[in-house]
Amino acid sequence: MARITPDQTAEIAALRAETSQTRRATVPALEEILYDPLPVLDHGFVRVIDYMGDDAAVVQAARVSYGKGTKKVSEDRGLINYLMRHRHTTPFEMCEIKYHVKLPIFVARQWIRHRTANVNEYSARYSILDNEFYIPEPQHLAAQSQANRQGRDEVLTGPEAKHVFDLLRDDAMRAYGHYEEMLNEGETRDESRQGLARELARMNLSLNFYTQWYWKTNLHNLLHFLSLRADAHAQYEIRVYADAMMDTLKRWVPFTHDAFMDYRMGAVNLSAKGLAVVQRMLSGEPVAQENSGLSKREWRELMDSLGRPV
Amino acid sequence: MARITPDQTAEIAALRAETSQTRRATVPALEEILYDPLPVLDHGFVRVIDYMGDDAAVVQAARVSYGKGTKKVSEDRGLINYLMRHRHTTPFEMCEIKYHVKLPIFVARQWIRHRTANVNEYSARYSILDNEFYIPEPQHLAAQSQANRQGRDEVLTGPEAKHVFDLLRDDAMRAYGHYEEMLNEGETRDESRQGLARELARMNLSLNFYTQWYWKTNLHNLLHFLSLRADAHAQYEIRVYADAMMDTLKRWVPFTHDAFMDYRMGAVNLSAKGLAVVQRMLSGEPVAQENSGLSKREWRELMDSLGRPV
Amino acid sequence: MARITPDQTAEIAALRAETSQTRRATVPALEEILYDPLPVLDHGFVRVIDYMGDDAAVVQAARVSYGKGTKKVSEDRGLINYLMRHRHTTPFEMCEIKYHVKLPIFVARQWIRHRTANVNEYSARYSILDNEFYIPEPQHLAAQSQANRQGRDEVLTGPEAKHVFDLLRDDAMRAYGHYEEMLNEGETRDESRQGLARELARMNLSLNFYTQWYWKTNLHNLLHFLSLRADAHAQYEIRVYADAMMDTLKRWVPFTHDAFMDYRMGAVNLSAKGLAVVQRMLSGEPVAQENSGLSKREWRELMDSLGRPV
Amino acid sequence: MARITPDQTAEIAALRAETSQTRRATVPALEEILYDPLPVLDHGFVRVIDYMGDDAAVVQAARVSYGKGTKKVSEDRGLINYLMRHRHTTPFEMCEIKYHVKLPIFVARQWIRHRTANVNEYSARYSILDNEFYIPEPQHLAAQSQANRQGRDEVLTGPEAKHVFDLLRDDAMRAYGHYEEMLNEGETRDESRQGLARELARMNLSLNFYTQWYWKTNLHNLLHFLSLRADAHAQYEIRVYADAMMDTLKRWVPFTHDAFMDYRMGAVNLSAKGLAVVQRMLSGEPVAQENSGLSKREWRELMDSLGRPV
Repeated sequence: MARITPDQTAEIAALRAETSQTRRATVPALEEILYDPLPVLDHGFVRVIDYMGDDAAVVQAARVSYGKGTKKVSEDRGLINYLMRHRHTTPFEMCEIKYHVKLPIFVARQWIRHRTANVNEYSARYSILDNEFYIPEPQHLAAQSQANRQGRDEVLTGPEAKHVFDLLRDDAMRAYGHYEEMLNEGETRDESRQGLARELARMNLSLNFYTQWYWKTNLHNLLHFLSLRADAHAQYEIRVYADAMMDTLKRWVPFTHDAFMDYRMGAVNLSAKGLAVVQRMLSGEPVAQENSGLSKREWRELMDSLGRPV
Repeated sequence: MARITPDQTAEIAALRAETSQTRRATVPALEEILYDPLPVLDHGFVRVIDYMGDDAAVVQAARVSYGKGTKKVSEDRGLINYLMRHRHTTPFEMCEIKYHVKLPIFVARQWIRHRTANVNEYSARYSILDNEFYIPEPQHLAAQSQANRQGRDEVLTGPEAKHVFDLLRDDAMRAYGHYEEMLNEGETRDESRQGLARELARMNLSLNFYTQWYWKTNLHNLLHFLSLRADAHAQYEIRVYADAMMDTLKRWVPFTHDAFMDYRMGAVNLSAKGLAVVQRMLSGEPVAQENSGLSKREWRELMDSLGRPV
Repeated sequence: MARITPDQTAEIAALRAETSQTRRATVPALEEILYDPLPVLDHGFVRVIDYMGDDAAVVQAARVSYGKGTKKVSEDRGLINYLMRHRHTTPFEMCEIKYHVKLPIFVARQWIRHRTANVNEYSARYSILDNEFYIPEPQHLAAQSQANRQGRDEVLTGPEAKHVFDLLRDDAMRAYGHYEEMLNEGETRDESRQGLARELARMNLSLNFYTQWYWKTNLHNLLHFLSLRADAHAQYEIRVYADAMMDTLKRWVPFTHDAFMDYRMGAVNLSAKGLAVVQRMLSGEPVAQENSGLSKREWRELMDSLGRPV
Repeated sequence: MARITPDQTAEIAALRAETSQTRRATVPALEEILYDPLPVLDHGFVRVIDYMGDDAAVVQAARVSYGKGTKKVSEDRGLINYLMRHRHTTPFEMCEIKYHVKLPIFVARQWIRHRTANVNEYSARYSILDNEFYIPEPQHLAAQSQANRQGRDEVLTGPEAKHVFDLLRDDAMRAYGHYEEMLNEGETRDESRQGLARELARMNLSLNFYTQWYWKTNLHNLLHFLSLRADAHAQYEIRVYADAMMDTLKRWVPFTHDAFMDYRMGAVNLSAKGLAVVQRMLSGEPVAQENSGLSKREWRELMDSLGRPV
């Protein structure tokens, strides 16, 4: 099944064709892709539906200004860096973005744990879900990590991989077939049967079926979401969504994006003990895990982040 | 599979056996059932794990008092009624309750939409889910309502019911069997295969499998949750959880419970137009839908709530 | 001192003069007043700085649509009425609005109790507050109500009114003079003194001094704010802000505004006991407070809302 | 005026004298000071009114356990360290604490910006505020910093200090006297005058007058509050409240407290660029601000945090 039906493609094209005059802050680079589905996984997508504000709006709010509140570009960039560095988060809350996302249910279950967002999900109580489910690409069919219970190891191959694909696909197809059969709706309806309530029948679908929602959040909360979900420790299947949203972030608020990469995504938090170790090392003292005050695990994490893997 | 294993039963008994002295507000009627699983659906439960405050704490906060802040019982009850009636919600936020809940995933998906709560869910990324899934009891296997897309009609019977039960049960059992096979862990592990990562294998489970979480909220948000989920329009499978929690509410804060039943659960909201209709009727004027200013649907809803079904 | 300085007026005019092309939902009636200060009280204002979405965006989110999601105007209006009536609040969260507000500190202290908004306040820790304070107009200089501790009675007049005005004005002017003296900054700086830290000096200002902030919220939370603050029981000095915002609501989302007036602002909540009384009255039974099951106060409130004041 | 009246002292003593049996998690070290006012500033205090959970409850929630969920003390401590280090915040949300705080209004205005808490403030619309205002101690009467607009410099002394004290005290006393005069209530009421509404008269009070509230939050949000307000950059007058609360934290959840001190309060965030500098320095390369990629300000901040002030 296609990611987007021809009807949906036409609806999106119609939306994109309409333009209006506005006095509001407007970001051409984001307007370029407005409403366009950015493909993610085998059937999913992320679409930017609307946005409010831009980098200048962050500056304007920080200065509580009557007009634009912006000064020289370098000063504005400096102010955004300062706000990010010192965790002055409220000015970033003054920008807002709204996405339409299509995603597997097990990804939606992780995502919804971020509570500071507005959500309208397609209701399987009220409507019928489409026959679309996620099957990993071969290079993402990973084995369980033995070192990290929450992680993946190398990729499955050969007959084991083939068997897993068969199981996932067959079970999903059977689940959907039975879902339709229990519902007993539409053209193939068997009038001798009543059909099970939609709110009950849905329970037969598995967690790789796709759902969709409108998801809206402010820039500060978006950054928090991205810092966790675009992180290397996030599950691959949600990380690809975060990656697609990171691209929209860069189009939308380039200064904020750069500050975010420097002070958050690429940054490292040194604990009090870790800082003491670094200070000793900088003063030329040889430090080993044994005399560091750190546990083995923390020592390894610290050396990793300093680019000196153990 | 049992709702609670013997080991879990023993752990709960051990918790219940320990008591301490405390200066905090304490509610004997709630202590009586503390930690005890209240059964819900075929494998689920609700357990009260902890609580903070009582009816008197609502009064104490409303009066910002140094001591208990309570006066005569009738005055305290009157104050709680007043607060509830006039939607002074902040004093109710001063009480807190924590539950441990075991519930089907499709119920958890509705529940989590209430964002103003704290949640720790059992992680299927990190751990392996048990082989427990929800199958409705015969009297709850309802057909789709034709009048209301979000509702149920009469109960399925005979061969159709039997067929639905078979499909639900067989699909869930097969899904779990394949989940275990893909995981390839534990005693039956086949060393010639690696086993799929837990965070991937879980996607083969269907939405009727049970999950569990710790869920904590304040009294105000609990009332909001109950007003929506203990309502007749809520899906049966979440309503039974709300009903069980309503019992814990009554034990915990009996005055607040009574006020809630009177001013919220049993109350009716009359729109401006609906109020005008009632005023005309009270003054003896005959009013019909046609000259009411209400749509047919609103008219029907109004007459229903006035106890005069059309 | 003027509400807005000539410099600020020029900044606002410059902002209003710039327009861009956008593909986003745009509301001409709101664009008309965008950035314009709507005067409130003697020195305050409300300005709409930005907005996201419109009535159609509510509909679009409720339908989780790919395109506009709107149908016939009457259907869209009907859907919005339905959502409002049945408290389906999430689609209203999909619209967002940002205000710049100038308001007395004692009003800001009430306002900030609404936590579900984003706020950037002008910092008196960092900057110097202007010499602007609120003095009520004669017709709003009300006496304390004896019946309702939280209410006002008739207006003060004659020498008492004059005396109150004198006290308020003199104390505020003296407070500001001393604030400036302690700060010891600017052109009149006395170099023989250091000057008190801004974060300390501000404590000498009284609660009628004006502050200002950027305040951003979603449509659902805005309606909640307005339902409490545009209500007759709200203090006059915050109600006038809510009234000004109500006008912006009407321009922005006219269907939502109308539904809000009918189902919230003009609506009445009948308790279970109150409903029983109405049912008895409608069936022709004479009901008096004594046999109503209601307290005297509730009886009076009910009769008031039914248009039959006791 | 005393911090606590004899009546209030008696009320508190009565509360402390009552104890009950409970099955809930109980923390003797916190029970010891329960209800006791911890003095802050000249008239303020912080009192712990209630709490829910302890260190073990964090562990219990992280493990979603049926019983206590705790293992060996060292394992529990290790788990809490792990959760803190990797910002797994939800288990910390499972503990809750409630304070009664008396504080100057200008401090309350900073404090209330933390939105994720429950608050009941003493209402000056409804009641009459006491004649209590904050006057800094001589060693805290600081001059404005010239380097940092948001900071303090050395302490004022001599005649300037004396003059500031006189202004602050006289203005506050006059403001309160006029407040009482406008209210015209109580024993000294002049029956020939009506008296101004309380909700209006309060606007004459200055921002150093004391207010009080019940403030309740979960452990995660408390840590966030403390990380900002117990920080050296916080204004002294709010920091002393955070310091008092830090002591209650240590009594309540000692493991969490220690982890918080190591991974948050004493920790340092290295930006991507800052990390690169540290890596170069560790590999023996001489690095100066000019070739560091950092601005002068960032360079200074980095060197400070590495214990090598420029």
